[in-house]
Amino acid sequence: MRLYRLKRLFVGTPLPTAQQRHERLGKATALAVFASDALSSVAYATEEILLVLILAGSAALSYSLPIAIAIAILIAIVVSSYRQTIHAYPQGGGAYIVSKDNLGTFAGLVAGAALLIDYVLTVAVSVAAGVAAVTSAVPVLFRHRVWLCVAAVVLVALANLRGIRESGKLFAAPTYLFIGTLGALLMYGGLGAIFNFLPEAPYVQHPPGLEGIGLFLILRAFSSGCTALTGVEAVSDGVPAFRPPEAHNARIVLTWLGAILITLFLGITVLAYDFGISPRPEETVVSQLARHVFGTSPLYYLTQAGTALILLLAANTSFADFPRLSFFLARDRFIPRQFATQGDRLVFSNGIVILASLATVLLVAFRGDTHALIPLYAVGVFLSFTLSQASMVRRWLRLREEGWWWRTWLNGLGAVVTGLVMLTIAATKFTHGAWIVVLLIPMLVVAFLTVHRHYEEVAAQLSLEGFEPPPPMTNTVLVLVGDIHRGVIKAIQYAKSLSPAAKAVFVETDPERTRKLEEKWGKWGMGVPLIVLTSPYRSLLGPLLEYIDHLQKGDENHVVTIVLPEFIPARWWQLGLHNQTALLIKGAMLFRKNVIVTDVPYHLKH
Amino acid sequence: MRLYRLKRLFVGTPLPTAQQRHERLGKATALAVFASDALSSVAYATEEILLVLILAGSAALSYSLPIAIAIAILIAIVVSSYRQTIHAYPQGGGAYIVSKDNLGTFAGLVAGAALLIDYVLTVAVSVAAGVAAVTSAVPVLFRHRVWLCVAAVVLVALANLRGIRESGKLFAAPTYLFIGTLGALLMYGGLGAIFNFLPEAPYVQHPPGLEGIGLFLILRAFSSGCTALTGVEAVSDGVPAFRPPEAHNARIVLTWLGAILITLFLGITVLAYDFGISPRPEETVVSQLARHVFGTSPLYYLTQAGTALILLLAANTSFADFPRLSFFLARDRFIPRQFATQGDRLVFSNGIVILASLATVLLVAFRGDTHALIPLYAVGVFLSFTLSQASMVRRWLRLREEGWWWRTWLNGLGAVVTGLVMLTIAATKFTHGAWIVVLLIPMLVVAFLTVHRHYEEVAAQLSLEGFEPPPPMTNTVLVLVGDIHRGVIKAIQYAKSLSPAAKAVFVETDPERTRKLEEKWGKWGMGVPLIVLTSPYRSLLGPLLEYIDHLQKGDENHVVTIVLPEFIPARWWQLGLHNQTALLIKGAMLFRKNVIVTDVPYHLKH
Repeated sequence: MRLYRLKRLFVGTPLPTAQQRHERLGKATALAVFASDALSSVAYATEEILLVLILAGSAALSYSLPIAIAIAILIAIVVSSYRQTIHAYPQGGGAYIVSKDNLGTFAGLVAGAALLIDYVLTVAVSVAAGVAAVTSAVPVLFRHRVWLCVAAVVLVALANLRGIRESGKLFAAPTYLFIGTLGALLMYGGLGAIFNFLPEAPYVQHPPGLEGIGLFLILRAFSSGCTALTGVEAVSDGVPAFRPPEAHNARIVLTWLGAILITLFLGITVLAYDFGISPRPEETVVSQLARHVFGTSPLYYLTQAGTALILLLAANTSFADFPRLSFFLARDRFIPRQFATQGDRLVFSNGIVILASLATVLLVAFRGDTHALIPLYAVGVFLSFTLSQASMVRRWLRLREEGWWWRTWLNGLGAVVTGLVMLTIAATKFTHGAWIVVLLIPMLVVAFLTVHRHYEEVAAQLSLEGFEPPPPMTNTVLVLVGDIHRGVIKAIQYAKSLSPAAKAVFVETDPERTRKLEEKWGKWGMGVPLIVLTSPYRSLLGPLLEYIDHLQKGDENHVVTIVLPEFIPARWWQLGLHNQTALLIKGAMLFRKNVIVTDVPYHLKH
Repeated sequence: MRLYRLKRLFVGTPLPTAQQRHERLGKATALAVFASDALSSVAYATEEILLVLILAGSAALSYSLPIAIAIAILIAIVVSSYRQTIHAYPQGGGAYIVSKDNLGTFAGLVAGAALLIDYVLTVAVSVAAGVAAVTSAVPVLFRHRVWLCVAAVVLVALANLRGIRESGKLFAAPTYLFIGTLGALLMYGGLGAIFNFLPEAPYVQHPPGLEGIGLFLILRAFSSGCTALTGVEAVSDGVPAFRPPEAHNARIVLTWLGAILITLFLGITVLAYDFGISPRPEETVVSQLARHVFGTSPLYYLTQAGTALILLLAANTSFADFPRLSFFLARDRFIPRQFATQGDRLVFSNGIVILASLATVLLVAFRGDTHALIPLYAVGVFLSFTLSQASMVRRWLRLREEGWWWRTWLNGLGAVVTGLVMLTIAATKFTHGAWIVVLLIPMLVVAFLTVHRHYEEVAAQLSLEGFEPPPPMTNTVLVLVGDIHRGVIKAIQYAKSLSPAAKAVFVETDPERTRKLEEKWGKWGMGVPLIVLTSPYRSLLGPLLEYIDHLQKGDENHVVTIVLPEFIPARWWQLGLHNQTALLIKGAMLFRKNVIVTDVPYHLKH
């Protein structure tokens, strides 16, 4: 009961199923919930591009402008492509469902595996980058960053366990704070750059480039920048969470999202180049930019706070979508069924807990370092983009709905472009960590298929098709006694309540104890006959199994129920002091047909 | 079944209880089993003395002779003292039993705690020293020493799980090989020293002493050398394992042991001094001595093999005595009861497994280094010596048997001397690790007392004194269903066999599923009424608990039996895919009075 109250305190009181329809999001709230991931990535995407280019020396930083423009075009293509998906799948078209629907189960599972991995990475990368924004402003916290990351994950997970609408409320303010402060930064900084009223940027001496600039390096920089696109698909996955008309509202939100994303990403990249900002380990690029434009005024700290908050909360997108995808996979029996169970607050609690745990493991393993996690990040996203767009192409070609030809072209363009980007990322980042994801996706798919086959086989085994109800069982109730005390008496009473023909069984290892027990049995046996089995090898199990064999001989419908007294101690450390025999018997009987072991608990007082 | 066969392969077939009397040891075998610990310590005792003295420079090594003589006298005193104990306790007089008998429970528990710790340390130190003997002869193995140690512990543990007489057979050869080769070494080396036919010892340049020689250093060297005494008490603990007349045979074996021990220890110390041998990290003192006397002849390798084997097998003394002491402590209810259960082969399997695990942990933690473990070692032994001798003094004074006055003096001398040695060891080795043992002993005593009080309280709670047999129980049998399939049908059948009035309960979370279930119920329900509980919050437990409350209202003798279908999967990894609901319900009902949960297993085929 105490645990239950603790749960209530953190998670809130349960909501009835009938309330489900009202747990929907308005457009402004939906933007905050589903866009935080995509928008927050502008906080690190520019920096990741510059980090690669600087390897070829500071002159190479100018390549950031064409790369950013290419990525902006990519965003526009992907957003247009996903608008079609929302149109076609108003009930929610995640890559898993769309691929499964149009390209078959296997493609769906590949997309599902890619997405599950990416949701975990989204949480890890966002939290790591959010903590980096905080430690840029408050450097003394730098050495505590791993713990800060873990604390942030726990916080977001708890917020999500409280349920989805409350999450929306929690997350609206930071998203709009981020859009507002970054908007102000770009406008004031842009004006400053044009009219030259900002202080001169300090000249930074760079070491000479370690690598020559070349196509591979530019492609690597482009791959790194593509993290700006992660999260764009979240809106189309979450259509059913919108207020009706769901599809219409979702498309509007997705278009807003694309426009804001392109503006912020391009703006930051252009200004960073104009002010000569280059990546530094101890301070993020956005922090440098904000410090340059706003000085150390409160506006700088507000910008960092907004960045940190949206990054920390960007993880929330995954907390909305990971459990939802798990639900679909569990419903289709590719992962264990418990992921399909909604918790008290109408959220899928199991998925939330698993996601938080995996992200925590990653953050601790990679010591909370954003740059180390990034190479793992984008392969899965672009794989699911590609499958999703390719599915749409297939769909238009099949259904030939109104406007199918231009829709086919649009989604086809999206599929080809994101497919090429995926291959580029996998190739340029392979040795930096992308190989982990390239290995993990097929492993997950195999696991999904194995679980699925098991569930199918079980369903076939359990099917009532052609099944004849067997004749009634006969049941012999035995209560196993080793001594006689209050716990045993309760067990005998219980056995008698199950069957008037119940018998007590005692395995003799020492004739002296048998004599003592038989003496007391007259008074306390309550009329239940006592059967003594001799055990020359001191084994408890051997004689018991022989006796059961003897009782059941040749009768397939004869069940033996073994009643065991069991102590429930009042304190945890007392657990090791009791019930070893009960455990032994339960273990031994687990794989025996037609033997059922029942514990009769006796609650110890202290 | 496969696991069972594996166990048979390693542990042998079970032995009947009636065979117990024949599992006794003859004198020669008993010497091998109970003396290996005491004798083997001569392989490192001299080295430990020299390691302390060398701190004051090589001139200080001459102090090893008077120190060795003092220790030899100590051995003689302790052996004489323990001969009395065997005389008075022919049924086996370990320090625990003797102290408890004469000085009270508390003293007994202190001795018991000291001995348990020391048995673990005996295993660890002996195995580490044995491996050092091997790596002295075969230096390439040095970097694998931790794994060699672990493998040796596992080997000895398995040998012991096979039963005590077979252990005797296994261990006789190495013990006599050790006595034989060391005897030859001392004789040939002694003759060589007298008639000067051995090659000149190479002159070793020592760094000047780091500390001045003084009383504290000499006492520390003496304390280190006292490890030669460890294991002397094993014979008196194990009297019942001897062939009749047990006490007589045990006294003879103990006297032999004392004589051999003094001879070997003094001989090695004198020869090492005479040949100018000083401790070196990469080779043991005994190995240096044997190499000097035998050269690199096969005899050298035979000596090292004998040393290694007796050291590796010395651990066996503890494997005979730790489980025996655990049995006594468990019988008196100071540790969990399962330590009082004999395994298939008439040995106390639990004690053997625990001892092996703890020793392995120590060996890994201390990286298999003998010298690091030694300071922890002797405090406990001498504490138990002291308590044991003091108990004997108390006993003679109480009983006044024949010859009581000289027996009192003999044991009194033993108690005072070993008590002083214990204080010396604790003081001189405190900062080197003895503090761990000084802390651990009282902690163990507190644990013993806590466990004891718990068992006493439980016995009082369960006592039938003044207990009135309660009126018969009424029992409502409910079978919880979530669907209808073969597993559920088996559960319904079982419920019907328990009670003709059994009811099925279904918790409704989705009216559509209720409708489907009710449709099938007519055909498959077998006449059992189906009760549908609505659950507006999707909770399974809430409505079920309410219904149980309703059934039991006001009737203390009304038990509700919940029958649950449970899947037993064919493969381990499938465990996570089933039975989550059953687990949830069992957990929730565990602390509820008068609710009993019974699983009806359904065995899945693959």
